[in-house]
Amino acid sequence: MSKLLADPATLTHDQLEEGTVFAPRFDAAGLVTVVTVEAGSNDVLMLAHMNAEALTLTLETGIAHYWSRSRAKIWKKGETSGETQQVVELRTDCDQDAIVLVVNQSGRGAACHTGRKSCFYRRAAVIDGQAALEDTGLPILFDPAEVYASQP
Amino acid sequence: MSKLLADPATLTHDQLEEGTVFAPRFDAAGLVTVVTVEAGSNDVLMLAHMNAEALTLTLETGIAHYWSRSRAKIWKKGETSGETQQVVELRTDCDQDAIVLVVNQSGRGAACHTGRKSCFYRRAAVIDGQAALEDTGLPILFDPAEVYASQP
Repeated sequence: MSKLLADPATLTHDQLEEGTVFAPRFDAAGLVTVVTVEAGSNDVLMLAHMNAEALTLTLETGIAHYWSRSRAKIWKKGETSGETQQVVELRTDCDQDAIVLVVNQSGRGAACHTGRKSCFYRRAAVIDGQAALEDTGLPILFDPAEVYASQP
Repeated sequence: MSKLLADPATLTHDQLEEGTVFAPRFDAAGLVTVVTVEAGSNDVLMLAHMNAEALTLTLETGIAHYWSRSRAKIWKKGETSGETQQVVELRTDCDQDAIVLVVNQSGRGAACHTGRKSCFYRRAAVIDGQAALEDTGLPILFDPAEVYASQP
């Protein structure tokens, strides 16, 4: 559907891994996994997915668009919360089935729907043979109940 | 199977997102997605998957273990190449279906099977209405043909 993106079936293994043709390998659900990191700090903000349309919109507009698996629709990040993401760089991996999106996070600087900068705000530790989570201390930058109040 | 990990079905939504119980939400294939980043620099090294066994082994040993989807087996990273990963921190996200693994990369410092530090060595750019990839210039730290020569 997208004229921006090539079909990986047209590439050899070597072209896929070392070449200059961008031919994302979408999975059976038509998605690639996206790791979104903050420009400068490299902090991992979130993990999400893109289909060909979301990837094309992201490349064309320079604003992060994802595919919401829970809502089954294109998700312009920040459309409700104001926490949009301006793309600084979009990288793919060796076998072109994953993406790193380097962004400037606008709004209050909170990529997570809980109001925190990052979704990864808890670390796991093994205590007495049981894995437990500890908060890493990221501050809550907005009140989700307020920001998403008007959502259906 | 793992006594370390709790069953997410036993948690409320709030406990899942704000609690201290580690209850990873494995997908239909029994996997969670893992973003592996380098301690200190925060550079994204690779994206991979873990099943409950790989996650448990990683927590218990402090050495990164993944599930290899292509080989359908537990994959102790670096077993062939020597490029093992020592875990500094393991974080999970708001809905506990993804992991960030912060590691020290040993060996030659190359997490990618192509011999580069990171799998994300190409950036996408739109040129004349077509997306093309450019090499970001990561050096090749080992010769894959040599390192993987003995592999079936």
